[in-house]
Amino acid sequence: MKKEQLYKFVSKQKIAFISSVDEQGYPVTRAMLSPRKIDGNDIYFSTNTSSKKVTQYLNNDKACVYFYRRGVFRYRGLTIKGTMTVCMDQPTKNDIWRPGDKIFYKKGVTDPDYCVLKFTGTEAEYYCDFKVETFDLNKQEENR
Amino acid sequence: MKKEQLYKFVSKQKIAFISSVDEQGYPVTRAMLSPRKIDGNDIYFSTNTSSKKVTQYLNNDKACVYFYRRGVFRYRGLTIKGTMTVCMDQPTKNDIWRPGDKIFYKKGVTDPDYCVLKFTGTEAEYYCDFKVETFDLNKQEENR
Repeated sequence: MKKEQLYKFVSKQKIAFISSVDEQGYPVTRAMLSPRKIDGNDIYFSTNTSSKKVTQYLNNDKACVYFYRRGVFRYRGLTIKGTMTVCMDQPTKNDIWRPGDKIFYKKGVTDPDYCVLKFTGTEAEYYCDFKVETFDLNKQEENR
Repeated sequence: MKKEQLYKFVSKQKIAFISSVDEQGYPVTRAMLSPRKIDGNDIYFSTNTSSKKVTQYLNNDKACVYFYRRGVFRYRGLTIKGTMTVCMDQPTKNDIWRPGDKIFYKKGVTDPDYCVLKFTGTEAEYYCDFKVETFDLNKQEENR
């Protein structure tokens, strides 16, 4: 398995589970719509600036994203560890925006309640058929 | 929505997403088979003693479990915050064991690589239709 295949797997999933660490040091997980963009080890999500996760990531950027696929014969899961950057700058917001987003953000692409979460992965664990493969995402080749 | 309904929702899901905090302070999320038992605010899972999550919970018991259901019309998600206890005592292991588990734990119910994770929830957030309800699980009634 190569790193490119991991991101191909990510790009096919409809739901992402993203985790932060709250003010008391507890992990907090919630589902998100699938990533808007994948660029190298950066995975972009759109979200509400007023959400608790944005506050949590501004206080502590340590993050995890999880993707899974439950097929007929096997279960595959991918945990990626990394950091989350809250992007409120207009160019990044413009880049990720889709016309349908107006349902969620009434004021459109400049809505102050619309922002972008940029996750930068450093390590990954891919689980399939009781086997776990680990990856150092900063290396070109897989690293077992 | 009452607390009992939250646990009814939990009992219907086939997959749980459980999160820990690793040695470097990063959240780590992975999927688990559905809980074996729910007793008050305690949710029990079976797992491998040798797994990384067991090491992580022994070092730091702060935990989160997430359940979701993606229906035709709506998405429902439940994040529960609490602590995880690693149970290696035989009575707890006996209580959760199912005959089919021998596929995973060759030595059966006394297999040292089989243990129980007991999650004790304290707070919950239930998401449905863009609305979030919060619950103090130590109170009898819901707490918004």
